[in-house]
Amino acid sequence: MTIGIFGFGCVGQGLWQVLHETKGVRADIKKICIKNPDKPRPIDAAYFTTDPAQILDDPDIDIVVELTDDPEAAFSIASRAMRQGKAVVSANKKMIAYRLPELYQIQQETGQPFLYEASCAASIPIIRNLEEYYDNDLLTSVEGILNGTTNYILTKIFSENLGYAEALKQAQTLGFAESNPKMDVEGFDAKFQLCILILHAFGVFVEPDEVLNWGIHRLSDFDIRQARSRGCEIKLVARCFRQGDRVSGWCLPKFVPVGARFSTINNEYNAVSLESAFTETQTFVGKGAGAAPTGCAVLSDISALRYHYKYEYRKFAQNTAKFDSDTTEINLYVRYQQEGDVDRADFTEISEHYASNAGNFLIGKISLGKLKNAAWLNNEQVNFLAI
Amino acid sequence: MTIGIFGFGCVGQGLWQVLHETKGVRADIKKICIKNPDKPRPIDAAYFTTDPAQILDDPDIDIVVELTDDPEAAFSIASRAMRQGKAVVSANKKMIAYRLPELYQIQQETGQPFLYEASCAASIPIIRNLEEYYDNDLLTSVEGILNGTTNYILTKIFSENLGYAEALKQAQTLGFAESNPKMDVEGFDAKFQLCILILHAFGVFVEPDEVLNWGIHRLSDFDIRQARSRGCEIKLVARCFRQGDRVSGWCLPKFVPVGARFSTINNEYNAVSLESAFTETQTFVGKGAGAAPTGCAVLSDISALRYHYKYEYRKFAQNTAKFDSDTTEINLYVRYQQEGDVDRADFTEISEHYASNAGNFLIGKISLGKLKNAAWLNNEQVNFLAI
Repeated sequence: MTIGIFGFGCVGQGLWQVLHETKGVRADIKKICIKNPDKPRPIDAAYFTTDPAQILDDPDIDIVVELTDDPEAAFSIASRAMRQGKAVVSANKKMIAYRLPELYQIQQETGQPFLYEASCAASIPIIRNLEEYYDNDLLTSVEGILNGTTNYILTKIFSENLGYAEALKQAQTLGFAESNPKMDVEGFDAKFQLCILILHAFGVFVEPDEVLNWGIHRLSDFDIRQARSRGCEIKLVARCFRQGDRVSGWCLPKFVPVGARFSTINNEYNAVSLESAFTETQTFVGKGAGAAPTGCAVLSDISALRYHYKYEYRKFAQNTAKFDSDTTEINLYVRYQQEGDVDRADFTEISEHYASNAGNFLIGKISLGKLKNAAWLNNEQVNFLAI
Repeated sequence: MTIGIFGFGCVGQGLWQVLHETKGVRADIKKICIKNPDKPRPIDAAYFTTDPAQILDDPDIDIVVELTDDPEAAFSIASRAMRQGKAVVSANKKMIAYRLPELYQIQQETGQPFLYEASCAASIPIIRNLEEYYDNDLLTSVEGILNGTTNYILTKIFSENLGYAEALKQAQTLGFAESNPKMDVEGFDAKFQLCILILHAFGVFVEPDEVLNWGIHRLSDFDIRQARSRGCEIKLVARCFRQGDRVSGWCLPKFVPVGARFSTINNEYNAVSLESAFTETQTFVGKGAGAAPTGCAVLSDISALRYHYKYEYRKFAQNTAKFDSDTTEINLYVRYQQEGDVDRADFTEISEHYASNAGNFLIGKISLGKLKNAAWLNNEQVNFLAI
C-alpha cells in the first residue's frame, strides 16, 4: 500500500509516528501535500509537495489520507481521489457531516472505499461497530461525550473548582483547546460527529444545520453551583434516538448525576453508549483527542483497506426512518437575569422556578423546534442545559 | 438463511425471542435439537427433535447454532456441521477454549465460518473488535471483568455489606448463579473466555490448563475488610498481556481502587479494557449475562453470516509470540490462619506482613509458576488476591 497524505498537522504527524512504530501494517508514505512550504517540518523535505496532482495523479499511490483543516479543499481532494480510483481515509468531521450524501454517491459510483473512523470519537471504533455489529433494527439510541476539549474543561471545572474562563485558558495553554475554540465549546464539533453517527446508527442522512447544538460557552458559576446542588456534574452530550420511524438528535450540555456512567468519563476521554432492545446499555470508552489516538484510528482504516473493507451503509438501504427533531421535547434548565428574558410561552410545562439576587432559573419542558428558533437565546445573559 | 439450533436453554430461548422481534435479520429457525423430549417447551412442539441428523443432514439448513451445555457433544456438532458445509455459531466457551486448535483447523479445511462472539463477555463485541480493529501489533494488554455471576456477587458484597455465602445464596435465588457455581466462582468460566481472547488479541493458542485461575470461593469477611481498608473493592479480573514475544495471562480476584474504571462495573455487567501503544486504554462495557444479551450476540454472528463473515485469525498467521506465564511475577495478598500455612520461600519478596487474632496476611511478589504449583493452596484456610 502506498499512501499520499494531505495535511501534516497534529493528526498527520500522529499517523506518521504510529505508522513507523508498527510492523503490522506495511504501508509507505510517498508524498505529503501541504499548504505552506516554508513551515519547518520534523521529517525529510523530499516528502513534501504543494501540488495536489503529485498525489492525485500518481498511479503508484492507492490510498489518499485527507487530514487538512479546510472542509472545501478536503471534499475536493476526497472526491477527486475516489474518481481517480484511490481509496480515501479522512478525519475531517465537518466536511464529512456536510457532504455525506455526495460522498456516499461518489462511493457508489466509483466503488472506492471512503473510511472515516477517526472522525467520530477519535480512537473509539464506533463507526465500524455500528456498521458491522449493530446492524439490526434493535438499536434505540446512541449517546456520547464526543468532544475531548470540552470534556477536559468540564473535568477541570468540577475536579479543581475552576470557573469556565479559567478552565478554558488552562486547556488552551496545554494545547487541548484552540485559540479560537468556538467549534469545540459551542458544540459544533460534537454535532458534526453526531450527524455521522446518525447515518451509521439509523441509516438517515441529516443536514448538520437541522441539528440543535449548544455548548458550554455561557456556563456561569451560578450554573455550576446548580449542578453541584443537584448532585450532578455537567457534560457536553450528543444524543440521537429513534422512536418508530422518527430519528431525533441534539448536542447539548447536560446535568449528569455523579456516579452515572458518563460522570466517570474525564479529561480528554470520550465515551459512546448504545441502547438496544436486548443488550441494554453498551458503552465504549477511549481517548477522544490527541495526535496518537487519532492517528491510530486513521491507521486502523488504512489497515482495513488491506482487505478491501468498505462501509456498506446497510441501514441506509433498509431504512424507512427520517430525521425530525422539532417535536421532540426535552427537559431544560434555563438560567436568565431578569423576568422577561425567557419566553415562557415556548414551554409546554414549567416544573420549577427559582429567583434570587445571584440568578434565576426555570426548569421546564420544551420542544427542540421551539428551542432552536427561540430569539431569547440571543441574550448573552441566558444559558441552558438539558436535565 | 435457515437455522438449526442445538439446545434450547436460556441462550436458545433468548435467541428465539431476539430473532422474532427484529426485522433486520431474516432467518428462519427450522429445527431445534434437544436432549429431553419430555420437558415442557414454550414454543410449538413441531420445532423439536432429539435426532441431530435432522439438522446436520438437512441441506436446507445453512447455519447451525450450537447452544448445548455439553462440551463434548458441542464439539462433535460443530465439527460435523462444518464438514457438512454449514456455518456454525457457538456460545460454548469451555468447548471453544479447549478445542480451538482443532476448530481452527476444521475452518481452514472446510472454509466454513465458525463464529463465537457470544462466548466472550456476552453482549460486548470484543472478538470482532480484536479481529477487525486491533489488528496491528500495538496492543499490549487485554483485561476484563468477564463473569457476570461473580461480578453480581461481589457488587452485593460491597454495596450491601453482605458476606460471600449470603451474596452467593441471593445470586442463586435470583437465577444469577447456578446451584453448582464452581465454574463461575472459581474463575474457570472467565479463564475460558480469556483463552479465546488471547488468540484473537495476540494470535497465540493456549491450553486452558496452562492458565492459572482462582476465584472468590474462599473470600472471607477478613479479606473483604482488608479490601475496604485499602480503599478498594474486589473484582474477578482476567488479564493477558504481551512483553516482547512472550504472552502471559491469569484470571484472579483483584483489589481494585474505588473510582478506578473497573470499580464502576457493577452487577451482571462485564467490561473489557484494551491497552495499546498509542490509544492507551479503551474500555467496552455491556451486559455479561442473561438470555437476551447473549442471544443478541448470537444474533449478531448470524447477521454477519449474511455477508459471509469469518474470522481471519490474521494475528495467528503473523505471530511469533508464545504463551509462557510461569516467570511472570505478580503482587499478591495472601491470607492464612497460622504461620507455616504459606511457604514464604515461594516469594521473591515480601513487602507487608500482618498478624492478628482475626487473621493474618502477607503481601509479596511471586511468579505465576510458583503460585500455580503451590501445595499450600490446598489449605482451605488460605486465600489470595492480586493487588
